[in-house]
Amino acid sequence: MTTDSKPQSRPYFDATVNFADGSDSPRAFLDRCVSDIERLDGDVKAFVVTGLDAARAAADDSGARWAAGAPLSPIDGMPVGVKDVMETAGLATEQGSPLFKGYQGGRDCAAVVALREAGAVVVGKTVTTEFAATHPGETHNPWDLERTPGGSSSGSAAAVAAGMVTGALGSQVIGSTIRPASYCGIFGYKPSVGGINRGGSYDGFSQSSSGLLAATLAETWSLTREITSRAGGDAGYVGVTGPMELPAAKKPNRVAMLETAGWANATDEAKAEWQRARVTMTAAGIEVADRHSDTAVAGHEDAIADAMKLSMDINAWEGRWPLNAYKRDMDPAGLSESAHNRLNQAESMSQEQFRDLLAERERVRAVYADLKGTFDAFVTLSAPGAAPKGLEWTGDPLFTVHTSLIGMPTVSLPVLQDEGLPLGLQVTGYWDEDADLFAVCGGILALFNA
Amino acid sequence: MTTDSKPQSRPYFDATVNFADGSDSPRAFLDRCVSDIERLDGDVKAFVVTGLDAARAAADDSGARWAAGAPLSPIDGMPVGVKDVMETAGLATEQGSPLFKGYQGGRDCAAVVALREAGAVVVGKTVTTEFAATHPGETHNPWDLERTPGGSSSGSAAAVAAGMVTGALGSQVIGSTIRPASYCGIFGYKPSVGGINRGGSYDGFSQSSSGLLAATLAETWSLTREITSRAGGDAGYVGVTGPMELPAAKKPNRVAMLETAGWANATDEAKAEWQRARVTMTAAGIEVADRHSDTAVAGHEDAIADAMKLSMDINAWEGRWPLNAYKRDMDPAGLSESAHNRLNQAESMSQEQFRDLLAERERVRAVYADLKGTFDAFVTLSAPGAAPKGLEWTGDPLFTVHTSLIGMPTVSLPVLQDEGLPLGLQVTGYWDEDADLFAVCGGILALFNA
Repeated sequence: MTTDSKPQSRPYFDATVNFADGSDSPRAFLDRCVSDIERLDGDVKAFVVTGLDAARAAADDSGARWAAGAPLSPIDGMPVGVKDVMETAGLATEQGSPLFKGYQGGRDCAAVVALREAGAVVVGKTVTTEFAATHPGETHNPWDLERTPGGSSSGSAAAVAAGMVTGALGSQVIGSTIRPASYCGIFGYKPSVGGINRGGSYDGFSQSSSGLLAATLAETWSLTREITSRAGGDAGYVGVTGPMELPAAKKPNRVAMLETAGWANATDEAKAEWQRARVTMTAAGIEVADRHSDTAVAGHEDAIADAMKLSMDINAWEGRWPLNAYKRDMDPAGLSESAHNRLNQAESMSQEQFRDLLAERERVRAVYADLKGTFDAFVTLSAPGAAPKGLEWTGDPLFTVHTSLIGMPTVSLPVLQDEGLPLGLQVTGYWDEDADLFAVCGGILALFNA
Repeated sequence: MTTDSKPQSRPYFDATVNFADGSDSPRAFLDRCVSDIERLDGDVKAFVVTGLDAARAAADDSGARWAAGAPLSPIDGMPVGVKDVMETAGLATEQGSPLFKGYQGGRDCAAVVALREAGAVVVGKTVTTEFAATHPGETHNPWDLERTPGGSSSGSAAAVAAGMVTGALGSQVIGSTIRPASYCGIFGYKPSVGGINRGGSYDGFSQSSSGLLAATLAETWSLTREITSRAGGDAGYVGVTGPMELPAAKKPNRVAMLETAGWANATDEAKAEWQRARVTMTAAGIEVADRHSDTAVAGHEDAIADAMKLSMDINAWEGRWPLNAYKRDMDPAGLSESAHNRLNQAESMSQEQFRDLLAERERVRAVYADLKGTFDAFVTLSAPGAAPKGLEWTGDPLFTVHTSLIGMPTVSLPVLQDEGLPLGLQVTGYWDEDADLFAVCGGILALFNA
């Protein structure tokens, strides 16, 4: 079953030009979002909970500021969703788990404080898989209700894709931002590791990052910088820096096209799209290398070949707590089978094994770091194809996991397709050079929109 | 006013040898602790809350294991306290703030899960300054009730010193473990940064570490390893490794005696004690260098001269959240003046300033790293003198802050005195070489106990 018409994301910056003369307003914009929530979310189920009265009040406040010519920021009044692993004052934070049904932390997480300080309007909490891991939530893909939206940022991607909000917070430790962005046909961004302050987000993995999903590249960047200029990165990290508005597009000189471990699972059409992306870039004068033409790229491909197992093992050890506390202190029956399996794995591991895993991750990161200066960016698919059918599985993360393992900043551009459904082109850069990555993304995006 | 007799900490390992024949038991040991709590804690106020019924049940369970010759670990049955910034199932976590009065997280933090898995008996939550920062709690020093126990791990230090528990969890980002250990005459240990998993502890600073306070050096180490072998370090860190029991004492060959920025504030008697420590080590054949005799030591002293301001600035930025959320979402009147001041400072800072602060911290860390191989350890005072009178101020952290800034592991040995009250000798080692530090501590301790 497909929906009657293609989902339409809802860019905000285009609307703000009409706020000054009153022909549009943040409140009217929000009302259009709410109308789509009411029309679609009974089927899509992107939201765990909404806070519409508070959102309307916040939109009205924003409208007064725009009318006075004094918005707090370019995102003042923008409706946003918050992944339900992030504390949000006045709304529950349930983490996709019955153990946290109705749990209220009573405070905003760091990123949400910053969004509110910039004037953004929090519409609600978006569905996550259990603890942002694999056990799925109940969100459907707005492009085809019989398909997964991807996970774990399932509701954030679906809500943005369906125009229920302009942007939403997500997170990724394996593929949880880029993959749902790909499946839902929107922009997704996982920053450099440490890039966005995770204070108040139930997400403690060393290779995890909070990220953004949004209707446009410019809005993805602005949301990020409005957060990081106020909240910074994780403790000990500066966080994403750069211009407050989208960096000027810059066509890269040289890119590495990656196959990754995902290649073996890619559909024929997805492989053809990968090839089309290559031809498009080559035609524009960009030099493109791959594992077959360049030994340095081959070395990187070899280094990331086992990124999935390495990441899962690292995450298992690092996720021992809080799963062991939930099992001991709460209700073991409230944990999914996959959570129990991860805990069992963790409890069979030793600190010495973890030391070896971290050393291997450092080795992989060093191979990547050596490529700096050689390529302006790395390009590949965001997923092996369109969103799979069924809600039991949130899809294959093999095209994304290496960026989380290494801590690279990465963006999914909604410019490819498979089975008539969205497929993302993934562009990846260098750690702490997120602004450069967005400049390159703008350059590549322009080739596809030409 | 001083108490009638000197406080006596309560070693546990000495008692366990009598568990096999039933002449002593974990329950009887606990009962002695509880007797001291009932006798003393009305004045000392080390505990926010105790959970004695659960503790007695846990002690009985432990006794059955010891009687069967199958304790879970050497610390099975050891009564412990938990600093009240760390979540503990069944007990509130109030963080020294009226905003969290009675707050129940419903789960154990990572370190407490591990302690319980090793059989330790959680007696209660120990008083912390507000959010483990500067605004004091109501704990008194058991050596002199008119004096501060030090902060922020105030209750943990006082409870261990008074024999109410054998060991307790603390934390330090400036001086919050080493200083109260010094003032209360017990062993204190701040691990290498990342050394103990902080999951479930409300302590997100990049240079903070959870740590231990205990009655003996051996128990300090065993508590640490029983935690880290199960829970590891912070995400992305292996955590403290090494033998499960105290490493064999090893007399160092060469140590650097530091003055630190604290020297200007040290009492004459404390300076004489520093000199006595030097003479004691020299007499034992240890080569001792200082800033006046060795340019490398002078370089390190210069590098850490501004450790206090640098640390406070880093902590201010990193502490913007959650203070801004508490102010926005909870009750601003529930925050102390010092919390408001820190928030105001954070809100006047920029991400670019923070980048400079981190770069300066890296510079200081590099100067220290260059000393590796030259000295086996660094030795100085743990505080400029005995605990100051009054409870309004938890004392001067200038002798401790550099170890947190740099992330060095450090131990306070209760072997010096000032005004007839305890003063710690601080021994500091190299990052991730905590076991070596404990070996050296054993070697130095033997010189003072000879």
